[in-house]
Amino acid sequence: MSSVDGVGTKLKIASALAKHNTIGIDLVNHCVNDILTCGAEPLFFLDYIAMGKLVPEQVEAVACGLAQACREVGCALIGGETAEMPGLYAGEDYELVGFIIGVVEKEKIIMGKTIVVGDTIIGLPSSGLHTNGYSLVRKLFGETPSVLNTHYPELGRTLGEELLEPHRCYHHQLKPLLPLIKGMAHITGGGLVGNVPRILPQGMAAQFRSRAWTIPSIFQLIQQRGNVAQSEMYRVFNMGIGMVLICSPTDVDQLTKALPEAKVIGEVVKQVGKVRVVIK
Amino acid sequence: MSSVDGVGTKLKIASALAKHNTIGIDLVNHCVNDILTCGAEPLFFLDYIAMGKLVPEQVEAVACGLAQACREVGCALIGGETAEMPGLYAGEDYELVGFIIGVVEKEKIIMGKTIVVGDTIIGLPSSGLHTNGYSLVRKLFGETPSVLNTHYPELGRTLGEELLEPHRCYHHQLKPLLPLIKGMAHITGGGLVGNVPRILPQGMAAQFRSRAWTIPSIFQLIQQRGNVAQSEMYRVFNMGIGMVLICSPTDVDQLTKALPEAKVIGEVVKQVGKVRVVIK
Repeated sequence: MSSVDGVGTKLKIASALAKHNTIGIDLVNHCVNDILTCGAEPLFFLDYIAMGKLVPEQVEAVACGLAQACREVGCALIGGETAEMPGLYAGEDYELVGFIIGVVEKEKIIMGKTIVVGDTIIGLPSSGLHTNGYSLVRKLFGETPSVLNTHYPELGRTLGEELLEPHRCYHHQLKPLLPLIKGMAHITGGGLVGNVPRILPQGMAAQFRSRAWTIPSIFQLIQQRGNVAQSEMYRVFNMGIGMVLICSPTDVDQLTKALPEAKVIGEVVKQVGKVRVVIK
Repeated sequence: MSSVDGVGTKLKIASALAKHNTIGIDLVNHCVNDILTCGAEPLFFLDYIAMGKLVPEQVEAVACGLAQACREVGCALIGGETAEMPGLYAGEDYELVGFIIGVVEKEKIIMGKTIVVGDTIIGLPSSGLHTNGYSLVRKLFGETPSVLNTHYPELGRTLGEELLEPHRCYHHQLKPLLPLIKGMAHITGGGLVGNVPRILPQGMAAQFRSRAWTIPSIFQLIQQRGNVAQSEMYRVFNMGIGMVLICSPTDVDQLTKALPEAKVIGEVVKQVGKVRVVIK
């Protein structure tokens, strides 16, 4: 099991604020969550960092975040490449790519095959935007330090602090529960709409009750700022749900007991027409 | 065995000439050669392509090169990520990163441990700059289409054609010969000076006879253009040697017979002072 990923233009926010020690956590956790959806245990991680002119302290700060997140999840950071690319990256800009290798026993791979109509959809809260939707946010707010350092009462912190909140890792809490989970979707680019259908068998759709969870203030702030349509919000952002689990209704109690923050947010229904995700 | 790599600012040349169908070959071959130095057989490859605004034809051309090179070396292209990063990449610019996983039996790993003073150094020709030294070349020549489309008689083609020549893959020719090879260095950034010492046991140095091989015209052209010191040329470029093999003098005949282009270019000597590479 392997995956390759970046952290999108969350990098531009890190650069604008010259805060590089958490973006590596984002990258590792994003990759770990990606392979966790198949039930895989992370084994090895490799990184690629490129910038116009190498700034050793910046590389070190990024690497610190990578190392910390790898350590926390028991994954070996076995190597990487640091590239100097003059003319490709301007000023403080840089690129950060992660590559993860994990393992799962063949008969334990989670593929969604056993999902049936009537199964329950459980959501786990995200810690913020995770690593998606930053291009839209930057378009709406800009990315100057003065904008990012603005304090918002509804966030209880500055916009920049909120936007740099690291991508949450779901590995530790979900690992012991994998045998109860029929399908799992990491809510990244595309949101619930883009990520959940991939794990559903043909002829089935996911029906969500958006009132079943509280949409964090940052998403309301973004929506108001840009007068963004509700449907677009759900396609671009995770809207407060970072990981979706699908299980049999008989296992819901056991799962929600073990996952105090988890909420039942919907169910698997018969597909009508072409719509595979309904958000009510 | 795994490796992560980019192709450096050779990407900028590809962008300037809008020729994207060979840069993927560079990336795969670079990665394959990297793990070949340990004796590893490539198994899987993953790519990461990022640009400011996705241009599907450009991504497709890059992917074509990746697929072709993977096919030729029998490596599975198992996945990748294509990222749109507005504001990070200007105009036609893009980033391309490759991750490779290979395998080698533990007792067959080539580590250079058996190298002794008196062993022979064999060089295999490069196909050009491969993927290193492009930032210096761009500094010296610029990267406008008019410069890159200039025909040079000594190259027998345009500068751009020469600079985009794909990185050569050494896998097929070296695979059957691995049991005869004690140590192997892929000559990338750092040149012979930077890459050969890494495989030498302590107390040994590599002594090269530069007259033993013909330095391709492109390197002379670069050196003249920038009045670059000879020592810097050897630190930045491969100078016509893409792969270095170290073997016992008794195996030289068998190796050079099997590798018609290979040349004996030096020998392993006792280290004197701190110098680990001598080029005469």
